[in-house]
Amino acid sequence: MSKPTAQERPSDATDQAVSDVRAALLAAQQELRHAAAGPVIVLLVGPETAGRGETADLLNAWMDPRGIVTRAWGKPSDEERERPSFWRYWRTLPSRGQIALFLSGWYGPPLLGRAERTIGKQAFDRRVARIAALERALADDGAVVVKCWLHVDHRTQRARLESLASDPLRRWRAGKSQKQRLNVHRRIVAAWKRAAAVTGTEQTPWHIIDAAHRHHRDLAVATRVLEGIHAALAVPARGKPTRPEPEPAAEVSVEDHLGALDLSLSIDRDRSRAELERQQGRLYRAQQRARERGVSTVVVFEGWDAGGKGGAIRRATAALDARYYRVIPIAAPTDEELAHHYLWRFWRHLARAGQIVIFDRSWYGRVLVERVEKLARPSEWQRAYHEIQHFEEQLVEHGTVVVKFWLHISRDEQLRRFRERERRSYKRWKITDEDWRNRRKWKAYAAAVNEMVARTSTRRAPWTLVEGNDKRFARLKVVRTMADRLKRAVPPPG
Amino acid sequence: MSKPTAQERPSDATDQAVSDVRAALLAAQQELRHAAAGPVIVLLVGPETAGRGETADLLNAWMDPRGIVTRAWGKPSDEERERPSFWRYWRTLPSRGQIALFLSGWYGPPLLGRAERTIGKQAFDRRVARIAALERALADDGAVVVKCWLHVDHRTQRARLESLASDPLRRWRAGKSQKQRLNVHRRIVAAWKRAAAVTGTEQTPWHIIDAAHRHHRDLAVATRVLEGIHAALAVPARGKPTRPEPEPAAEVSVEDHLGALDLSLSIDRDRSRAELERQQGRLYRAQQRARERGVSTVVVFEGWDAGGKGGAIRRATAALDARYYRVIPIAAPTDEELAHHYLWRFWRHLARAGQIVIFDRSWYGRVLVERVEKLARPSEWQRAYHEIQHFEEQLVEHGTVVVKFWLHISRDEQLRRFRERERRSYKRWKITDEDWRNRRKWKAYAAAVNEMVARTSTRRAPWTLVEGNDKRFARLKVVRTMADRLKRAVPPPG
Repeated sequence: MSKPTAQERPSDATDQAVSDVRAALLAAQQELRHAAAGPVIVLLVGPETAGRGETADLLNAWMDPRGIVTRAWGKPSDEERERPSFWRYWRTLPSRGQIALFLSGWYGPPLLGRAERTIGKQAFDRRVARIAALERALADDGAVVVKCWLHVDHRTQRARLESLASDPLRRWRAGKSQKQRLNVHRRIVAAWKRAAAVTGTEQTPWHIIDAAHRHHRDLAVATRVLEGIHAALAVPARGKPTRPEPEPAAEVSVEDHLGALDLSLSIDRDRSRAELERQQGRLYRAQQRARERGVSTVVVFEGWDAGGKGGAIRRATAALDARYYRVIPIAAPTDEELAHHYLWRFWRHLARAGQIVIFDRSWYGRVLVERVEKLARPSEWQRAYHEIQHFEEQLVEHGTVVVKFWLHISRDEQLRRFRERERRSYKRWKITDEDWRNRRKWKAYAAAVNEMVARTSTRRAPWTLVEGNDKRFARLKVVRTMADRLKRAVPPPG
Repeated sequence: MSKPTAQERPSDATDQAVSDVRAALLAAQQELRHAAAGPVIVLLVGPETAGRGETADLLNAWMDPRGIVTRAWGKPSDEERERPSFWRYWRTLPSRGQIALFLSGWYGPPLLGRAERTIGKQAFDRRVARIAALERALADDGAVVVKCWLHVDHRTQRARLESLASDPLRRWRAGKSQKQRLNVHRRIVAAWKRAAAVTGTEQTPWHIIDAAHRHHRDLAVATRVLEGIHAALAVPARGKPTRPEPEPAAEVSVEDHLGALDLSLSIDRDRSRAELERQQGRLYRAQQRARERGVSTVVVFEGWDAGGKGGAIRRATAALDARYYRVIPIAAPTDEELAHHYLWRFWRHLARAGQIVIFDRSWYGRVLVERVEKLARPSEWQRAYHEIQHFEEQLVEHGTVVVKFWLHISRDEQLRRFRERERRSYKRWKITDEDWRNRRKWKAYAAAVNEMVARTSTRRAPWTLVEGNDKRFARLKVVRTMADRLKRAVPPPG
């Protein structure tokens, strides 16, 4: 029952090949770490007797295990169940310079679910489309996704299952009948073929590895991993394109959503106070119900500098039970965040069932400030529209309420507020040179906002544009909208 | 049922006091954030009708919720249950510049457990001692722990419970009889008194707040929080002591553990290969059982540069199922890690039940490299002995197997290995100027190691000193020790 190790040696020729690939792997791994390139994400997918675990063990033995994350996923923990299903993968994604070996990875649940007929074809296809989007987002970001299908033909599988069943130490594995297990095997292969047709792209192709012979299998996988590391090293460092990318043509066809807003909207003080209290009460009760029913909420606040985000957030949180919400201010990313895909820092803040997470600025920074200030390349912020849509769709599919606000003010109103802040000493920290600089690019920002709204406002994750020249009006609209959206998601009983 | 908000106003005098404290709180909070001081950890502890939640809501409304983490803990998640009980608090600890409002916090489970008689006095006292150590460690690190006991006298409690019971919207709360609940109340107060006698230190005192009147309570807590922020701002930034600390006198009484090792120990190649395989098999089987029984293992590797840590780790991991171990290389902390207590980065890597976490260098860096290179102040590394002991005791109490290795070689052997590394081009990256610099401080390091062993080797978390001049001998000893320790923790059936 001792684990197969590198000590069990095959033929001399394979021996030499193994020794070569081991040396090359170790060297490439060091280079990967020093260059902080990649990461390299290796998916080992295959039927139960394909030897995914053995191969992972061996790769760990051949390389430096300090730079490798090996993971297999069983039943989700309750913390995982309370978030969108990909959360468990996002939280485990390696950072640049690292290698991940994922056994089955995100293919595990859909393949097994399909084989056991617990999910239908449509659900399977939807899940596969999500996987394709995830892999594409990772690859676009410089990660190399090495997908290995460990192929075991029907006859070999039958022989293996028989030998497993006769091994007294492993008999526990054989709960089902041989026939049932062979059936599952056949269906897993069929499901994989269906998935591979969609996910086997030029960017993230499938490698089909013959897993009938252990040594051949391991050498083949190792070679693919080595190629993957080299591919990662060949990707130019982020922010340094090989050649400058042309700015995309302005989207003339985009509607002027901001221009269409009526900024003269206002409300008088007395009415607003009474109405605000009423809406806060509605919001409070809706939160209580959401809490009881385990419905999560994600709220995004975006808006012009001095647009009133802070004040609006405070009016909303004043109505909420502080134990069950969290405000996440998004400023410069930490070094851990920089070492991952830009959406990683938002995935990590998703909260458990029944909680509200309020993002003060958000993933939309990618298509706003990073676009306008040229911190992201055109290709980066352009693909972000799709990545964001996939992200929010996963939230919505999980049952999370997604509320997004853009706090809009006029350019004149912004100037008035900047000046006022400069006058009032205790608010002076709120105004910086950067604010004045950003202000000069008003038109570029407005274009970016209009395009953002056009491309990311969906039925279940719509943008709410808030007419913000009158602060009272804006705050009331924010609180009322939150209350409306939550109430619709968790209607009061009766 | 609407939530009480700041809009419900008390008398004019209180009104003015509230308005003053709000302005001061907001300003102090900004300063805290800009100075990255603190963090400030506010514990709101009290019986069920004391209004901890209301006060937390109000503090969130008065300050900027973006810099506040509010948390109450219910039933532990399965991920929390699979780690030492304080893990859930460590993962939530705020970073410098932030404020945390913890409702009941680490006092919740022991107070309730004692009141409901589910834990005995001894267990309670042990838990309280752990709490005192935790609070002290946080405070020593620059955190300010503001502990508020919200006092409700017996009569007020009775009246509140009665009004709760008659409120149809809140009746769900009243599961037990009034008498039972009053009993629990009395016992919680008694348990808290017992806890406060130990945890109410000069450094982290208890503030007793009269919670009979809401406005008085909120104002009193807010005032304590304000004082706490000011206290955090008064702590000198880390690494910048107000005056230089004297180096502690060398501990002449410490035994020369390293000098006592017989570095001539060796094993011949053939015997070692067979024996290594045998021990790897034992380790593999022990890991399987640990996995099945949910026993976790933490392994620490420390040792001289070129002492053979990497090779020993690889011989151990070669025997392990890669899905269930993780190697954590400890290098420079990330900026998120720097913004927390130095033990935070180790707590965060503790794995779920049945897993093995291998630390390549560890929390002992504090009393080794940080001590010798004067990266930590004498007071910092000296108190680390206690902090480490408390940390490891918690692991052990949780049922985790703790294995610690020091890989020892002679100074001559190190020189030989350095030179060899320089000769062999593919290992050249392994040797840096720093290695040569550290080598010159051999004596200081040896003294630090001896003191570390003397002060942190305990019966259930002992140090294993490995005679490492002969690599084969060292690797074998490492693998055998791991197998022995795991086997003892999870003996084979029969």
